[in-house]
Amino acid sequence: MSGYLDRNWETFPMHKLMRVDQPTTKIVPDKIRRVTERESGFCKAAAGDYGDRLQKEFRRFVPKFPISGAIAWMRDNMQPFRDGHTAAKTAPLPDNPIQLSRHIKETAYFLRADSVGVCELPEYAVYSHGFSFKNMDAGETPTRLQHKNAVAILVDQDERTNHAFAGNDWISNSMSMMSYATSGFIAITLAEYIRRLGYAAKAHYAPYYDVLVPPILLMAGLGEMSRIGDTVLHPFMGPRFKAAIVTTNMPLHPDKPIDFGLQDFCARCKKCARECPSGAISDGDKVMHNGYEKWPVDIKKCATMRVGNQHGSGCGTCVKVCPWSKPYTPFHRAINWTMRNVPVARRFGIWGDDLMGYGKPDNAQKWWFDLEDKNGDGFLSIPRSYRK
Amino acid sequence: MSGYLDRNWETFPMHKLMRVDQPTTKIVPDKIRRVTERESGFCKAAAGDYGDRLQKEFRRFVPKFPISGAIAWMRDNMQPFRDGHTAAKTAPLPDNPIQLSRHIKETAYFLRADSVGVCELPEYAVYSHGFSFKNMDAGETPTRLQHKNAVAILVDQDERTNHAFAGNDWISNSMSMMSYATSGFIAITLAEYIRRLGYAAKAHYAPYYDVLVPPILLMAGLGEMSRIGDTVLHPFMGPRFKAAIVTTNMPLHPDKPIDFGLQDFCARCKKCARECPSGAISDGDKVMHNGYEKWPVDIKKCATMRVGNQHGSGCGTCVKVCPWSKPYTPFHRAINWTMRNVPVARRFGIWGDDLMGYGKPDNAQKWWFDLEDKNGDGFLSIPRSYRK
Repeated sequence: MSGYLDRNWETFPMHKLMRVDQPTTKIVPDKIRRVTERESGFCKAAAGDYGDRLQKEFRRFVPKFPISGAIAWMRDNMQPFRDGHTAAKTAPLPDNPIQLSRHIKETAYFLRADSVGVCELPEYAVYSHGFSFKNMDAGETPTRLQHKNAVAILVDQDERTNHAFAGNDWISNSMSMMSYATSGFIAITLAEYIRRLGYAAKAHYAPYYDVLVPPILLMAGLGEMSRIGDTVLHPFMGPRFKAAIVTTNMPLHPDKPIDFGLQDFCARCKKCARECPSGAISDGDKVMHNGYEKWPVDIKKCATMRVGNQHGSGCGTCVKVCPWSKPYTPFHRAINWTMRNVPVARRFGIWGDDLMGYGKPDNAQKWWFDLEDKNGDGFLSIPRSYRK
Repeated sequence: MSGYLDRNWETFPMHKLMRVDQPTTKIVPDKIRRVTERESGFCKAAAGDYGDRLQKEFRRFVPKFPISGAIAWMRDNMQPFRDGHTAAKTAPLPDNPIQLSRHIKETAYFLRADSVGVCELPEYAVYSHGFSFKNMDAGETPTRLQHKNAVAILVDQDERTNHAFAGNDWISNSMSMMSYATSGFIAITLAEYIRRLGYAAKAHYAPYYDVLVPPILLMAGLGEMSRIGDTVLHPFMGPRFKAAIVTTNMPLHPDKPIDFGLQDFCARCKKCARECPSGAISDGDKVMHNGYEKWPVDIKKCATMRVGNQHGSGCGTCVKVCPWSKPYTPFHRAINWTMRNVPVARRFGIWGDDLMGYGKPDNAQKWWFDLEDKNGDGFLSIPRSYRK
């Protein structure tokens, strides 16, 4: 289900958002050099680019906490099922890509996605080369993916846990892993369904992507690029989600990008930059980088904080403190509407968010036990607890 | 997540229900003969007890529709991960089973379960023998399961689809498969987490159960036995869910059974018996059967309808028409409260449910395409559509 036992055909009123022809982040496709997976912060950490200590930490930073470890184990179990046999004959479906897009989205919502969008797969969003930190000996291998369209499937990282945690304590990685594994489960099932309809389809989810996620989310109208580096922000979940992608040759009608005023909001707010424990997020202006105009981020600082964190597992402080990371209650929906539609109200919203104490951990809601597998031998002990 | 982006620690206010020492269904453990899995309607159909035609139909009744087929494929992919290695040393956890139960439930809700309960695993709920219709040559094999406790994990079959469908059309099996696979995914992940904490744990989900589900749900306080044969009805989802089970030796504090007046309600309502297309549901009184006092059901008629349905895939008409299968909106929550707490209001509620037209398909909400793999060769065609 979509995140609601009582839902409309989509979980959130995405159809009420302003649609635009181009993403609010300037993209110059001609200037974009296709990137290789190896360039991501995690791959660099795994490959030793950030030093021996971080390379060693990389192997344990998810399994050192048993919830993230168990979810990542399940996520990895599903990896062999990302692709499969396509039926030899296409099914007798309506000859209308708009209807097919709606149907594929409805199916993803039925499988309990929280937000779904469709776009043409931009060539620049396909990795030039893949790199597996589970099989680094294989090196970089050219990506072969000829699919025309992409379906993006978002899963919330759990608002309740986001409210409870400090940003970089022991549960942090588990929130990512839960959304990775759950969106992966949905994408794998959806891709198999599309293949049964007679169209090639492949599921991509962390860390098994042939594609770069952020441009797909922008083109599929699921969010705008935010100040948090390379992170697309959803109008109703904020940055509190992970995405899986299904690429396919099924004829689908693309969604259009959205504009809900985030470029103006992020230009003013800067709360993520202020609270980032690693100083990775810039409080300055946007810059052009590889054909995208966006706020810069220091991926080395970010990866070092997340992988090397000795007082927790991972880090999602930016997700925790973002004023858009709120529950979907009537009160917050009203504020959300105002932030999207009344530009002059934004400065008061940003001021009010701090004033109300949002972004602080709520210890009364903490439901997990701090535990650490210190030596990678499966023996759990109580770590020095970390609280801001 | 629990079914809500905005949720309390549990999705539904289960803590507000009246708890009782014994289930509202009379159970005489001494009189219960442990059953074998082979006795279930589906296993009987698969094994040929209901004739050659149904045995043949059994092989195709789920994959003949591509959504249920894709989900069942994913469900089967996960089967090897039901059990695994238990950590050699138990984690340093609080020495309080109440706290541990709460934590395990919180973890299941974090993994997006819709309702969770805990009980001691009754010996009579463990199958005497297992039977796999995927490997019938193996015959019946004695069940070895020594776990002390059970955690039951419920996943909604999707209220929106339940509202749209007719009860026994093409999407019917997909609703079951979605809840089976999703609850299985959660149970498998939760069992792995418990094993990492140093306690044996095994996941059970359809069709890979070592245990009989209904008595576990009753003891875990997740519902009362309903007129729909052998089906436990949840106070907030009605019969519109499937359950996966984690059995474990982790010390847990059991929940208590609940009483929300269902025995009285089902004695009066009889809508499921009236609407069942196979006449499998009795409109008579409860009888004692194998140590349980419950409404009888003709499992042959039920399995024949579900497996043999030529105008759809499966059947969930009882789930569709049950007055308890409602969305969790303020209006329906108010009616729900009244039905649970004001016995004299029940006859008006039952009368009003028909009067308001509940239980009829809403074609405007239909989101799936009717398709059939007629010959099991992966070629899909448009079947004769079925609408009541």
